[in-house]
Amino acid sequence: VEADLVVRNCRLYVPYTMEFIECDVYVSGGRVLAVDCGEGYRIACREELNAGGRPVVPGFIDAHFHVDSSMLAPWTLARALAARGTTCVVTDPHEVANVAGVEGVEWLMEACGSLPIRVYFQVPSCVPASPFEDPGAELSLEDQLRLAERGCIALGEVMDYVGLVSGDPRLSRLVSEARHRGLVIEGHCPGLSGLDLDRYVYAGVDSDHTKLTSGNALEKARKGVFLEVQEKSLTEDVVDLLCRLPPGSYCLVTDDVLPDKLARDGHLDHLVRLAVKLGLPIEKALYAVTLAPAARMGLRDLGAVAPGKAADLAVLEDLESLRARVVFCRGRLVYRRGGAPPVEAVSVPRRFLSTVHVAPLHEEDLAIRIGAKRGTAVVNVIGVEERSTLTRWLVREVPVRDGLLRWDETGLTLAAVVNRYGRGRRALGLLEGCRVEGGAAATTYAHDAHNLIIVGNSPRDMVAAAEKVAGMSGGVAVSVGGSIRCALPLPLMGIMSLDPLEKAAAAVAEIKEALRELGYRHTDPLKSLSTLTLTVAPELRLSTWGLVDVKRRRVVPLVVKVSEE
Amino acid sequence: VEADLVVRNCRLYVPYTMEFIECDVYVSGGRVLAVDCGEGYRIACREELNAGGRPVVPGFIDAHFHVDSSMLAPWTLARALAARGTTCVVTDPHEVANVAGVEGVEWLMEACGSLPIRVYFQVPSCVPASPFEDPGAELSLEDQLRLAERGCIALGEVMDYVGLVSGDPRLSRLVSEARHRGLVIEGHCPGLSGLDLDRYVYAGVDSDHTKLTSGNALEKARKGVFLEVQEKSLTEDVVDLLCRLPPGSYCLVTDDVLPDKLARDGHLDHLVRLAVKLGLPIEKALYAVTLAPAARMGLRDLGAVAPGKAADLAVLEDLESLRARVVFCRGRLVYRRGGAPPVEAVSVPRRFLSTVHVAPLHEEDLAIRIGAKRGTAVVNVIGVEERSTLTRWLVREVPVRDGLLRWDETGLTLAAVVNRYGRGRRALGLLEGCRVEGGAAATTYAHDAHNLIIVGNSPRDMVAAAEKVAGMSGGVAVSVGGSIRCALPLPLMGIMSLDPLEKAAAAVAEIKEALRELGYRHTDPLKSLSTLTLTVAPELRLSTWGLVDVKRRRVVPLVVKVSEE
Repeated sequence: VEADLVVRNCRLYVPYTMEFIECDVYVSGGRVLAVDCGEGYRIACREELNAGGRPVVPGFIDAHFHVDSSMLAPWTLARALAARGTTCVVTDPHEVANVAGVEGVEWLMEACGSLPIRVYFQVPSCVPASPFEDPGAELSLEDQLRLAERGCIALGEVMDYVGLVSGDPRLSRLVSEARHRGLVIEGHCPGLSGLDLDRYVYAGVDSDHTKLTSGNALEKARKGVFLEVQEKSLTEDVVDLLCRLPPGSYCLVTDDVLPDKLARDGHLDHLVRLAVKLGLPIEKALYAVTLAPAARMGLRDLGAVAPGKAADLAVLEDLESLRARVVFCRGRLVYRRGGAPPVEAVSVPRRFLSTVHVAPLHEEDLAIRIGAKRGTAVVNVIGVEERSTLTRWLVREVPVRDGLLRWDETGLTLAAVVNRYGRGRRALGLLEGCRVEGGAAATTYAHDAHNLIIVGNSPRDMVAAAEKVAGMSGGVAVSVGGSIRCALPLPLMGIMSLDPLEKAAAAVAEIKEALRELGYRHTDPLKSLSTLTLTVAPELRLSTWGLVDVKRRRVVPLVVKVSEE
Repeated sequence: VEADLVVRNCRLYVPYTMEFIECDVYVSGGRVLAVDCGEGYRIACREELNAGGRPVVPGFIDAHFHVDSSMLAPWTLARALAARGTTCVVTDPHEVANVAGVEGVEWLMEACGSLPIRVYFQVPSCVPASPFEDPGAELSLEDQLRLAERGCIALGEVMDYVGLVSGDPRLSRLVSEARHRGLVIEGHCPGLSGLDLDRYVYAGVDSDHTKLTSGNALEKARKGVFLEVQEKSLTEDVVDLLCRLPPGSYCLVTDDVLPDKLARDGHLDHLVRLAVKLGLPIEKALYAVTLAPAARMGLRDLGAVAPGKAADLAVLEDLESLRARVVFCRGRLVYRRGGAPPVEAVSVPRRFLSTVHVAPLHEEDLAIRIGAKRGTAVVNVIGVEERSTLTRWLVREVPVRDGLLRWDETGLTLAAVVNRYGRGRRALGLLEGCRVEGGAAATTYAHDAHNLIIVGNSPRDMVAAAEKVAGMSGGVAVSVGGSIRCALPLPLMGIMSLDPLEKAAAAVAEIKEALRELGYRHTDPLKSLSTLTLTVAPELRLSTWGLVDVKRRRVVPLVVKVSEE
């Protein structure tokens, strides 16, 4: 037997026994050949690396992630993830599906096939996410079953929990077909509890990655829901609970990670550090990014460095920083500190680079005309929360003058959503809790349909920002005083950049800073902006159909009542 | 929603959180509909059962079991297992495959399909177990792949670890084809360690159910071997180790259980009690017979009582006795204390009831003739161990008189293995460490080829016992002083009884007792007897080919050297 590589003097993390052992790891043909715990195996080796007693961990695995909401091209993302020790992500490509349908998903699958890290796919379960979206494409049940046959390993987050619980026949059929094919069924059920939770799980969905508290996490775990714990769920209480659960009952996931966050904090490494800081033993935290997600996803060859398993592993500087020194995936070097091998870009069909077709927007289009000269109007308003992407449904009184709604006099902010797939439909709404004083922001990165959303307190800037985004074939732009303050082009399907990580990260950071300066108070103003359109997250959202009452699944008018003076 | 059944006031064991919770469990259509933890769900129910605060557990699952080595007909076995809270076994039908090939396996699969408990199948990996067996049938690679397509979920214990490690092409291909089809690969590697273990695991086999010590269990676990812990491995040291492992790294299994043991001690319930007695917390012990085996075997709907999971559950008297009070499988009652529903027998094709075809045996056939009048002979002898089914390879000097080997003068015991599939081949051997003074025992229940083995110190009784077994179309018989002392007919393929549990259990107990009385010192003389023929277990065995040196995979002569006086 000859090995391609031996990594000597490892302090190897073994999830099966939840301990670190001193050993040499032999690799052959992309798999681990042998783990020598001081027995002095005699195996000839083509290449040798000395870990110098440093920690060696199985490559990290993210069981719930969206490649296509990272704002990065897949090849750029792959390089950035590898640098953080992540060698496998399971992605639900529902952003791309909303923009470009099955064709887009198939292109993404092909593009990801040649990446240095592993990308497994889920079948997007809800495209459109709700009947009140206006996406570039839809997935029929046939499309979804075709994707299931094409190697997808799971059904992506079943967001329409209201639909499933109430027995929506199409969704029920999809879930049951997916189960029948042995797919893992991924969930999304924020705050679901009691009998509704039982019903959701009974229908076949048995994971959740939405915001967890220790109380609902315990309820969910007891009912067989595999907990996919995001950063926003990582509180002391939740970590206390995780400490008590068997390590196969949960994992850590990142869901959506924007470039600035990825460059600054990292990926799963960041969550492990955070969890450890909150009291989770490192052995359990590592289990939650290695064997637990592998087992959950049925990836039997992944999640551990052991004979026969994939040679996906990272040599770390130390267990505190978790900084990767060298990372291998399939036995091949995918990252080396100070000299990571480049990742080749995949060619993109021209049509996926010009997906933004917006009718010209004028300031008049943004005026809200009322059938009364002067008086007040009662309006439905989206309440933006500072620390969450959930919104509240507010009702406010706004003055009317000269037949126009004077929202600008009441501290509200205007929002417009414009179809960007050439169909012309658009709608206006009002926001409270965020401001874009004397400016505007626009983006085609707006979940899940990725139409063009524009928010601002200045109609002139709203038009300017919208024009800028359209001119870039998609992206994000902030306009102040009539001129563009900053922008990030996202020409790949209107949601992904072709820039390197550092450049995209800087642009995103700049945009967030600009938004904050203009008065958009939010822990992540770009995340807030890009989810105002998400018609499956409570309570009130704006799509091209108008204001959507998420819980009752209906469109509600902007203006409820007008009182003329 | 209407439920078929509600079990109220459960103290439910939840493996996901490793705790007991008070709740009501609703069942509908064979699955758990809802688990109500005091919220007062309003669900109409057709039937109600009050658990009265007693423990309720998911039905026990045995991931490594042989239905066909239980000596019971499948329907009798199923009833006995259900009474112990076991609702699922994963069986490797290699006994039936050795007797009746693919046809036999397909019949068994069909027969098990109508049982009240779940029986999942593995593809027997080695039929014959080695080139030195002489079975009724063999499985070709094509046969095995056909079984893989017919719904088998795993490749059965790859016993020929020597073959696999040395790269036997047929076996390597089988393992890789099975992996490719997503089958779990089950192992069997007694004492394997170091680089040979790495190689075995590298080839794709990642479990082991053979005798474990804490040392080799730790080594195996570290290398990714899922530990299937049998009773013989349940020592204080091993349990100490299990306490430290994550609960997904091991399970409890029973492998072969004879009727007397099943009736007296039980099944997995017995192992749980034993493990707890040795220090394993009950929460972990229960995990090891519910969620751990289900996850290992990819049985996603089993192993827990939670919404959407199978309604396989047992109401127990208490956690100390673990005695089952009521047991459900697929939501149907399969056991109720004091009044279990009967299980219908499945019709057996006539040919499976007459599988024993032995040429008449005479006392002269048992004489060992030597090409010398008088002197001594050096002979190879099987050393029987008192507390194990492993054997030692001994070399002894035996007197020769009148051209005959006088083994009877040296404290040895004679053994004969006779082909029982009408092919006439037979061989003789000698045993040390066990006696059958003035008598003999014979059986067609002899792993893995299930030929007729006869051991004894009286050739007359050996002939009588053999005739008795042949006359019963298979079974076990003990003869003393020329007449049959006790016997158990096993007419179904020569290895399974058609009697009820109690009757078979009494017969087996009687046979063991008789063997012990006659001088067969062993913790389980019948198990010892029936494995003397197992040519894959070290060190020396007897098949119709003669004495088999297991480690070097060759036949060795009974008589090594003769010195004439």
